[in-house]
Amino acid sequence: MAASMTTEIPSAADTPWADRYAERTLGMTSSAIRELLKLTADPDIISFAGGLPAPEVFPVAEVAAAAQRVLGMHGAAALQYSTTEGYPPLRELLVRHMRRYGIEVGPDNVLVTSGSQQALDLVGKLFLNAGDRVLVEAPTYIGALQAFTSYQARYVTVPVDGEGLRVDLLEDALRAGPKFLYVLPNFQNPAGVTLSLARRRRLIELASHYGTPIVEDDPYGQLRYEGEHLPPLVKIDAEFHGCANGERAFRGGVLYLGTLSKTLAPGLRLGWIVAPEEVIRRLVQMKQGTDLHTGTFVQMLAYETARGGFLDAHVRRIRKVYGERRDAMLAALEREFPAEVRWTRPDGGLFLWVTLPRGIDSSAVLKDALREKVAFVPGRSFFTDGGGLESFRLNFSYCRPEVIDEGIRRLGEVVRRHVQDAAGD
Amino acid sequence: MAASMTTEIPSAADTPWADRYAERTLGMTSSAIRELLKLTADPDIISFAGGLPAPEVFPVAEVAAAAQRVLGMHGAAALQYSTTEGYPPLRELLVRHMRRYGIEVGPDNVLVTSGSQQALDLVGKLFLNAGDRVLVEAPTYIGALQAFTSYQARYVTVPVDGEGLRVDLLEDALRAGPKFLYVLPNFQNPAGVTLSLARRRRLIELASHYGTPIVEDDPYGQLRYEGEHLPPLVKIDAEFHGCANGERAFRGGVLYLGTLSKTLAPGLRLGWIVAPEEVIRRLVQMKQGTDLHTGTFVQMLAYETARGGFLDAHVRRIRKVYGERRDAMLAALEREFPAEVRWTRPDGGLFLWVTLPRGIDSSAVLKDALREKVAFVPGRSFFTDGGGLESFRLNFSYCRPEVIDEGIRRLGEVVRRHVQDAAGD
Repeated sequence: MAASMTTEIPSAADTPWADRYAERTLGMTSSAIRELLKLTADPDIISFAGGLPAPEVFPVAEVAAAAQRVLGMHGAAALQYSTTEGYPPLRELLVRHMRRYGIEVGPDNVLVTSGSQQALDLVGKLFLNAGDRVLVEAPTYIGALQAFTSYQARYVTVPVDGEGLRVDLLEDALRAGPKFLYVLPNFQNPAGVTLSLARRRRLIELASHYGTPIVEDDPYGQLRYEGEHLPPLVKIDAEFHGCANGERAFRGGVLYLGTLSKTLAPGLRLGWIVAPEEVIRRLVQMKQGTDLHTGTFVQMLAYETARGGFLDAHVRRIRKVYGERRDAMLAALEREFPAEVRWTRPDGGLFLWVTLPRGIDSSAVLKDALREKVAFVPGRSFFTDGGGLESFRLNFSYCRPEVIDEGIRRLGEVVRRHVQDAAGD
Repeated sequence: MAASMTTEIPSAADTPWADRYAERTLGMTSSAIRELLKLTADPDIISFAGGLPAPEVFPVAEVAAAAQRVLGMHGAAALQYSTTEGYPPLRELLVRHMRRYGIEVGPDNVLVTSGSQQALDLVGKLFLNAGDRVLVEAPTYIGALQAFTSYQARYVTVPVDGEGLRVDLLEDALRAGPKFLYVLPNFQNPAGVTLSLARRRRLIELASHYGTPIVEDDPYGQLRYEGEHLPPLVKIDAEFHGCANGERAFRGGVLYLGTLSKTLAPGLRLGWIVAPEEVIRRLVQMKQGTDLHTGTFVQMLAYETARGGFLDAHVRRIRKVYGERRDAMLAALEREFPAEVRWTRPDGGLFLWVTLPRGIDSSAVLKDALREKVAFVPGRSFFTDGGGLESFRLNFSYCRPEVIDEGIRRLGEVVRRHVQDAAGD
């Protein structure tokens, strides 16, 4: 860019837009994660901050071959407008794929979205009036808070522990009358914990009792590195409300959100929502006004890449790579971190959660860590109520094992200093 | 799809979501255009209904070659998450491209969006509180109404005539205190009319006087088949507020929306917003919560296809093809339609606007036309206030000239019948 191309931009006060922002947008600050992602552009930084899949596992050659087939076979149709619901063969593929994880629905229960972030936005748009409460885990996914807050949601929170959402504390929160409950049952972002089977069942029982629907966000469910796959809430809900004669019933008390971002490629921006047909029809209306439809070419491309068993084979490969990285990070933490620090041991997913001794501010640790060229996300970002001071999230999917070793070594030194300082106070 | 794969879906009343929809979504009906687009899947229908570009002009081979280069050069980066603002080389290309149409801004004034429909959604999200008024043309683009209505906007309308928005009727509407004015100055959707230069200047004068910012939607501005390009409002606004010493000033009283849907391919879903940097930063926050970012691969693909002069050359080719189709439709209308019927003669774009004699309901004409396998969009869809009964929109970009001839012949018979019936009443 020549400097001469950039026109002088005045300060906000000079534009007639400055005093016109909607109430919903006031006080919203840019996501700490997104800002941190900008740091990762510095190649010297070892970043455990983002939720980035490992670029080494992206199926570049397969996508390139699929692109040629799509444009060769479908040519103009791939570049044309298409229906809001999504590319039918992709919806059918997703139905078959979900079936392997216990979710029995038809293609008319599936809306393709522009990443599962858009699914969160559409759910907010369809259900949230200003001031409505949403029941969320503490901590929870920042992007969901961003999406719901843009519809002026308020929050009711229930903490998680090593077995996920504390269902023993759920009833008070359900009595507060939330519009829905938002939960990540598998390898939760950010805590890395998984909701146990007993708690899943209890959660469905309680939610049914109080008539509270559930939004089940499952970006990582397929990325399990040990233990057995647990049935998704959408399945348990269907069974709970199943007919006596054994017919399957999809009552739709649970909306299920899936994504191809962690299993195929996030840069395609492809996710989906599972819902009763009536809800899908209304979500389709919301999506029409939001972006007309998700890109035709990328939907065809994802279908053409994923079909014929490739997606399953690829997920197995990712599991192996990420499983090794999780092990590398757990081993490094054991080696490098002082005994006073605790962390979760996720069975899958992309993240683990570190808890420092009481009173140590993880933001102060981050400041020092960045000087040593290591990044992570401080815990407070994931709480709606000011919690998380002493916690932080580490991503283990993005860096190679030897980089994880080096990053955790550097981070261990910083953490050790803070722990010693705190003990010396 | 085997029938057995489809689970029984109960009616809405059976799901716990049924009584939880947000107020904003109640009473929203599915876009008539989108529903009609479904009809066009029937290959026997001659559709003048959609706003579809002609598939014959899609640069399939160029996109296929670009896809290989992108995946070859950038491999994993094309499939990875990226920044919300957009792919920097694409933003710079758009800056250079806009400059040829008189818009002088820098890349930091550009946010890449998932089609310009998303730009409308983000503008609504950033600026509209429930009950805010938006000043729109009557008729106007349905998708904008869908986007703004989802933020509970109300409308103030000003009619258009052959020279576009009736600026002589504007002051009353501006006094009503709209949050912003939404206008399509070039080859307006649906009316096909273009705002004259004198009116553009008067519009900026009045909007500045009343302090009302403008959202300028310009999907078709590059598709002019005769006459001279007129300066966009964003340029006139900058000049109006220009410094005495001749420095360029981008005051940002006008947000400008562009798209690659009509010049490259709609199936990529790529558009952009031009705004002051401060507004871009806030739009970026809104977009983060909406879909994180627009697809990395499609942004790189569009850049790689468009660069090196291809986009300009391709726009010239499209102008030639669509100009011929416009001429074919105008000639066919002259030949086939009764003298009592009037229509606009657009200098560019995709649409023209037909007005039937008073009292003839274009929806009734559509019903008969569909029996003859011809489709269009009745005028009422484009009005917020019940107007447009006797009008309808015809698209001339999608069908080949010989198909236009046949479609207008069939439609002419239907219209003639209705006109005769009305005269006989």
